[in-house]
Amino acid sequence: MDILPTILRINHAGKVALWIGFGVFTAVSILLFALSLTVPAQKRTFFYFGLLINVMGALNYYKMASGDGSVLVLQGERYASGNPEHIFVVREVFRQHYIDWAVVATLNMFQMGLLAGMSWVNIGFLLLTNEAVVQTGWVAALESNQTRKFVWWGFSWIFVAAVAYIVLIIGRRDVKAQAPRVGILYNLLALGATVLLAAYPVNLLFAEGLGLSSVGTEQIAYTIFDILAKAGFGTTLAFVDKLTDGEYTLADLPESWVQPRSKIAAVQLPGPDNL
Amino acid sequence: MDILPTILRINHAGKVALWIGFGVFTAVSILLFALSLTVPAQKRTFFYFGLLINVMGALNYYKMASGDGSVLVLQGERYASGNPEHIFVVREVFRQHYIDWAVVATLNMFQMGLLAGMSWVNIGFLLLTNEAVVQTGWVAALESNQTRKFVWWGFSWIFVAAVAYIVLIIGRRDVKAQAPRVGILYNLLALGATVLLAAYPVNLLFAEGLGLSSVGTEQIAYTIFDILAKAGFGTTLAFVDKLTDGEYTLADLPESWVQPRSKIAAVQLPGPDNL
Amino acid sequence: MDILPTILRINHAGKVALWIGFGVFTAVSILLFALSLTVPAQKRTFFYFGLLINVMGALNYYKMASGDGSVLVLQGERYASGNPEHIFVVREVFRQHYIDWAVVATLNMFQMGLLAGMSWVNIGFLLLTNEAVVQTGWVAALESNQTRKFVWWGFSWIFVAAVAYIVLIIGRRDVKAQAPRVGILYNLLALGATVLLAAYPVNLLFAEGLGLSSVGTEQIAYTIFDILAKAGFGTTLAFVDKLTDGEYTLADLPESWVQPRSKIAAVQLPGPDNL
Repeated sequence: MDILPTILRINHAGKVALWIGFGVFTAVSILLFALSLTVPAQKRTFFYFGLLINVMGALNYYKMASGDGSVLVLQGERYASGNPEHIFVVREVFRQHYIDWAVVATLNMFQMGLLAGMSWVNIGFLLLTNEAVVQTGWVAALESNQTRKFVWWGFSWIFVAAVAYIVLIIGRRDVKAQAPRVGILYNLLALGATVLLAAYPVNLLFAEGLGLSSVGTEQIAYTIFDILAKAGFGTTLAFVDKLTDGEYTLADLPESWVQPRSKIAAVQLPGPDNL
Repeated sequence: MDILPTILRINHAGKVALWIGFGVFTAVSILLFALSLTVPAQKRTFFYFGLLINVMGALNYYKMASGDGSVLVLQGERYASGNPEHIFVVREVFRQHYIDWAVVATLNMFQMGLLAGMSWVNIGFLLLTNEAVVQTGWVAALESNQTRKFVWWGFSWIFVAAVAYIVLIIGRRDVKAQAPRVGILYNLLALGATVLLAAYPVNLLFAEGLGLSSVGTEQIAYTIFDILAKAGFGTTLAFVDKLTDGEYTLADLPESWVQPRSKIAAVQLPGPDNL
Repeated sequence: MDILPTILRINHAGKVALWIGFGVFTAVSILLFALSLTVPAQKRTFFYFGLLINVMGALNYYKMASGDGSVLVLQGERYASGNPEHIFVVREVFRQHYIDWAVVATLNMFQMGLLAGMSWVNIGFLLLTNEAVVQTGWVAALESNQTRKFVWWGFSWIFVAAVAYIVLIIGRRDVKAQAPRVGILYNLLALGATVLLAAYPVNLLFAEGLGLSSVGTEQIAYTIFDILAKAGFGTTLAFVDKLTDGEYTLADLPESWVQPRSKIAAVQLPGPDNL
């Protein structure tokens, strides 16, 4: 007996969510660009990060909302979409998300590391383990074989745990050496970032993993998470000076990075010889 | 009624152009390597960039000239190739170009930023906006849907405008603080680079966009642009000392970058502690 | 007369080899992590590199061993697998290796450059030429056309020669300015690294190139080479202090990289202004 595949595709609500994501990231990009002009050049680090994150978010969400950026993944015979019996499932997976997160999640975590004031080596570990969460999730989402899908999903939790350790234990310890208001802001954002990071693989579990949520529901959830991570996080950090009463200075750009190099003809590429 | 697709592929002239590109980039690679040995190690920055750009150009052009590096893109029913009626078009698109440009165009623009002496932050913006021109053009070229193709092409012009602003307004302002001959050279190259950058999406418009030019004509145009950008630009900057009477020094490499580190056993990785 | 394709796939022995690779890299990752805690933070450079290399090795080998990470490449009518006549061959090629090597081989060579104490510019050349060996081999392995396959394979040897020159001539010259025991260690590893690097394209020649070795034999060979390069190299360098009597200090991390930045509120991003 032949089994006809059930093709699970995004629905109208899911598409609307992706278009809303595009609109929000475009608006926040313009907002952050305008706001960045109101502060001195050396104070714009977080504006630049937020701008980069939201512009890339806008482009990637346009791609998905307009109908690109997904692949159909054979998932074999399984339960899905509330069907009482096994059906042969082909599911639309928006892989464009992973291209987006592979770059953008790293930038977000770099901001967390800067805010905490953790060591450069720990920032390095934070970025690498965070990147590993994205990469292992990427493999899990596009995997046809259920066993391997869950193994990769399990791998991603190892790296989620490592990120949580760095953000919640090391970051919260290191931020204590800064002004109290920086600590309050960091502790709030650190908790939010960790919960948010863990929400992504949970969404993956219910969607591609167990097949309990539809493609549309999955995309609505990812869009909400991304709006919090890109737009919410970006605009919050744009007001870091107001939120910490100007007591956070670890992300100030050196004068030499924002000034034209040609003003002093003797300046060369950076390095110990140029001191 | 079935419609047979018309497959638009590269012609003999286009293939010859790609082989010429391979030959030119190979020759210029060898030339720049030989020339680099005639100047002190600290003066070789632009030779190294030119070498990297032309070696990568040679490899990527070999790939395309030898018959790889392209995909067939369904373009649907449309006007193409001077046919008076709508035909169903499948077009050969050389995506290898975009792999090439994604790396090489960034290196080229980095040289423009160094020559102008603009701030490191502005160099960062120049590289990111320039990369965005390549990435949005890449999506446009491989897109099957005409509407989306033109939206992505439109996005690429936003970033072309940003690059033009940085190169022509910021760069020309900053270079004024250097010796006059550096300014003359920069202003010439900046104008050339901007016109050349804009020529790529125009070529895309007539080729994949409107279907007015054949795949062969498109590749001849890209080859000419690339020879100007890689070989022309590279050899010009190799003579930056002669062209500016030795008055351009912003790209000199620090002594510590060109000397073995082992000569002083106490030197460690770069960082504030090693001063 | 129709010709049925012969599909050459990995055998049981090859799969066992990939699983052994996964096990070894997982074990060495745990070992290096545990060992790193026994030395001061500034002395952990090589532990971090080794950890990164082996964790990525473990993930990539899991992917291949579990049945992913390969593509079927049409190789046309040719001799293969000891068959006396031409057969039409489709061969399984594990492209996941190239994703692995593209990142990991660079990290390995960076360690060689650090150990030799060669200049940063020469380390740059070493990493770029080594990356070119991987990229050209990648194209060769996935190429269907025999002529082009051998041209790309030939390209890779040009870059192998460049790497050998940098490692064996420049590196061995520069290491002489360090303590004798560093020189002895470097010379041994440099010879091993060069022989090992050359072994990869030789394996490619007998496998995808001439079709003399089976997919299983090919994977057994790659696994042995990778265990030497990742696990062997990594554990050796973890004992660099014991092996050189503490006389090698060029890879010590600056104090400012391993200390929280928040302890001194005045510290900013690195750059000449922060001195």
